[in-house]
Amino acid sequence: MAEHRRGANLPSIGGFNRTVVLDAVRRSPDGLSRVELAARTGLSAQTVSNVTRFLIEAGMIVESGTVVAGRGKPRTILRLEATSRYAVGVHVDPAVVTYVLLDLAGRVVAETTTSTPSADDPSEVVRTIATAVDGLVTGAGVAVDSVLGVGIASPGPIDVDAGVVLDPPFLPRWRDVPLRDALATATGFPVLLEKDVTAAVVGEMFLAGESSARNFAFVYFGTGFGVGLVVDHEPVRGVGSNAGDAGHIMVDQGGLAGTPDGAGARGEVGAAVAPDRLVRVARERGLRLAGATGTDADDAACVQRAWEALGAAIEGGDEVAVGLAAEAGAAMGRAVVLIVNLLDIDRVVFGGPFWSQIAPVALPAARQTVVASPLLVPKHPIAVVDSGRGADVAAVGAACLVLDAALSPRASTLLIRH
Amino acid sequence: MAEHRRGANLPSIGGFNRTVVLDAVRRSPDGLSRVELAARTGLSAQTVSNVTRFLIEAGMIVESGTVVAGRGKPRTILRLEATSRYAVGVHVDPAVVTYVLLDLAGRVVAETTTSTPSADDPSEVVRTIATAVDGLVTGAGVAVDSVLGVGIASPGPIDVDAGVVLDPPFLPRWRDVPLRDALATATGFPVLLEKDVTAAVVGEMFLAGESSARNFAFVYFGTGFGVGLVVDHEPVRGVGSNAGDAGHIMVDQGGLAGTPDGAGARGEVGAAVAPDRLVRVARERGLRLAGATGTDADDAACVQRAWEALGAAIEGGDEVAVGLAAEAGAAMGRAVVLIVNLLDIDRVVFGGPFWSQIAPVALPAARQTVVASPLLVPKHPIAVVDSGRGADVAAVGAACLVLDAALSPRASTLLIRH
Repeated sequence: MAEHRRGANLPSIGGFNRTVVLDAVRRSPDGLSRVELAARTGLSAQTVSNVTRFLIEAGMIVESGTVVAGRGKPRTILRLEATSRYAVGVHVDPAVVTYVLLDLAGRVVAETTTSTPSADDPSEVVRTIATAVDGLVTGAGVAVDSVLGVGIASPGPIDVDAGVVLDPPFLPRWRDVPLRDALATATGFPVLLEKDVTAAVVGEMFLAGESSARNFAFVYFGTGFGVGLVVDHEPVRGVGSNAGDAGHIMVDQGGLAGTPDGAGARGEVGAAVAPDRLVRVARERGLRLAGATGTDADDAACVQRAWEALGAAIEGGDEVAVGLAAEAGAAMGRAVVLIVNLLDIDRVVFGGPFWSQIAPVALPAARQTVVASPLLVPKHPIAVVDSGRGADVAAVGAACLVLDAALSPRASTLLIRH
Repeated sequence: MAEHRRGANLPSIGGFNRTVVLDAVRRSPDGLSRVELAARTGLSAQTVSNVTRFLIEAGMIVESGTVVAGRGKPRTILRLEATSRYAVGVHVDPAVVTYVLLDLAGRVVAETTTSTPSADDPSEVVRTIATAVDGLVTGAGVAVDSVLGVGIASPGPIDVDAGVVLDPPFLPRWRDVPLRDALATATGFPVLLEKDVTAAVVGEMFLAGESSARNFAFVYFGTGFGVGLVVDHEPVRGVGSNAGDAGHIMVDQGGLAGTPDGAGARGEVGAAVAPDRLVRVARERGLRLAGATGTDADDAACVQRAWEALGAAIEGGDEVAVGLAAEAGAAMGRAVVLIVNLLDIDRVVFGGPFWSQIAPVALPAARQTVVASPLLVPKHPIAVVDSGRGADVAAVGAACLVLDAALSPRASTLLIRH
């Protein structure tokens, strides 16, 4: 596909200062002058001049009118050319693949989903994703040359350096899939791979903008249970880029204990609140849910359908559904307390692909569990909030990583070209 | 005490660059020239010149001979004047208070311990510590004017801004003790307060020097069970400076389950491996240990004596003692797995005031538990090692924080003067 694309992607926009300047321009919808840029970034007038010349030549910012400030000569205003570049974000969840197309301003200009291919043959997975990416870009009417690359958010564990998805527990047929390089070949775009939880954290930070908290935990409720961490405005990736696995943390199961496969009073939070398990428990308690049962019950797409039905039942005030969501929220809250104690954070954000359906009940239950826990150590208030963003936060984060990588020489080594 | 000391403490050595330059000189036992300093620190020749002039006038570095490099004029060599300044570190553990005197090179030049006053009256605690600090400084023959201040490592939770020890669970009579300001008044020295786990992490980093790992967890085994974290060479303090509480993490108790107060198969790791509990279990299993029993069994000093006896029994190969240490190490290892999964770290260091006695058996048990755990997510090797330093690592860390605070304008706000 698309041989011409390769050279066309800006091979090395490079330069940390470029990222800094572009980011400052992006955050100023009314534009700003070179003098303001220097003041805001701390860069010298000379550096600002060089960097802005480069960005103008690359078409990423434009000169747009002048303002008169005091008695000096009029200052030229620089604005972001939001539609000059794009990045694709792909979030591979066991049930669904979400695709977003972000422009340089970080706006989602196109979005789509496909069901996750469960084929034994990884090349079918790659083909499906490549076709969807191509359709997204073409459908949005965006020039192929303006796409900086594709970021993939994948369940862990992954090998970031090799670009390989190792053996995610919830994708049983996936093992050592070289997703990054295969997708770079299939699409012709540069591609980077990041763990889903980390991509979600990056997306959350990006969408919060300047108001993003200095420290927070992001509870990622997907097919697996993860907790991403931000310390001093930096996502914690870990030495192997696989940070965020929280499913094995043991908690009191509360009302979820004693159910068919619930074992004892205490169990791993990831198993306790796994969507497929909650769907089984709901049925055990007499709730009728769409989606397959029996031998198909493990199928991710079936769980996804039953989960939507559970969400509808919660919205309709069904007692069983509401009770289950509250128990799930409380169990997650108990795990969160341990993480808050370990890192002394004051903000916990809940999100991820399975979150929104149970959020109206699970969020207050989680909040109550955290703030009233006798085990909580910190004395300060702790905000327990919903991610402002929907289920696509990880896809948005993956696309943000591409924008960063294309602009920063350090990060650009992660973007693999065909 | 010592009215003259106040003004004598360098009131504002100030300047991040000073810390950077002094640190570079400290790390070069053979000294180095201004040209080498500029190359090593990235600072301009002018800045290096200004900073070194200041440090020479302050007596912290000295010019010491010249070397001829190439055809240029001879270069003056700068060396640290290690004995020009000192810092005191105090580690308050429920059983014992450890005091160290560090010189500017970070060498421990004097050290002492006292038992922890358990008096209801906090002023007695302050008097005991102030007397010991005074004795340490005087006994070392160090000029009072050369002492930059006192760092206290205290059990949490603490209020760092107010300098108050809130309500540490293992010091039941301590509640809202304004330790920092009271000690500043009693000693005449500037004083800062830090949580014990964080101070231990700082001490471990300092003692490892340039070989300090970029990311690691420090398992602090004291009267409480803490885990300090270093991410990208920075200790994680948390928003309220109380990070590191790991005692409530639930684990399979293994061989420790079912013992008198061991409750079920799963329990909180802090309670499972608490030294006073392990001493009780040892006695239940027929091991004779020194130290009081019965009503005095909760007394920290008695537990300390029994713990020393347990250590001797382990050294002597006693089966009960060895088995208990192995079970404690395994339980800690199970908690460590959850933290390794969350942060994806590759190095775990064990230490703290109660660690050395069980280390010969508990360390290999913890290591085996971590590396062989079926719950471990990261694929890379994980080093599970002993802190090179003994029980005084937190006291050393507290003293290091004073050296930093005295040199860095940002951190100096933490050092409270009388």
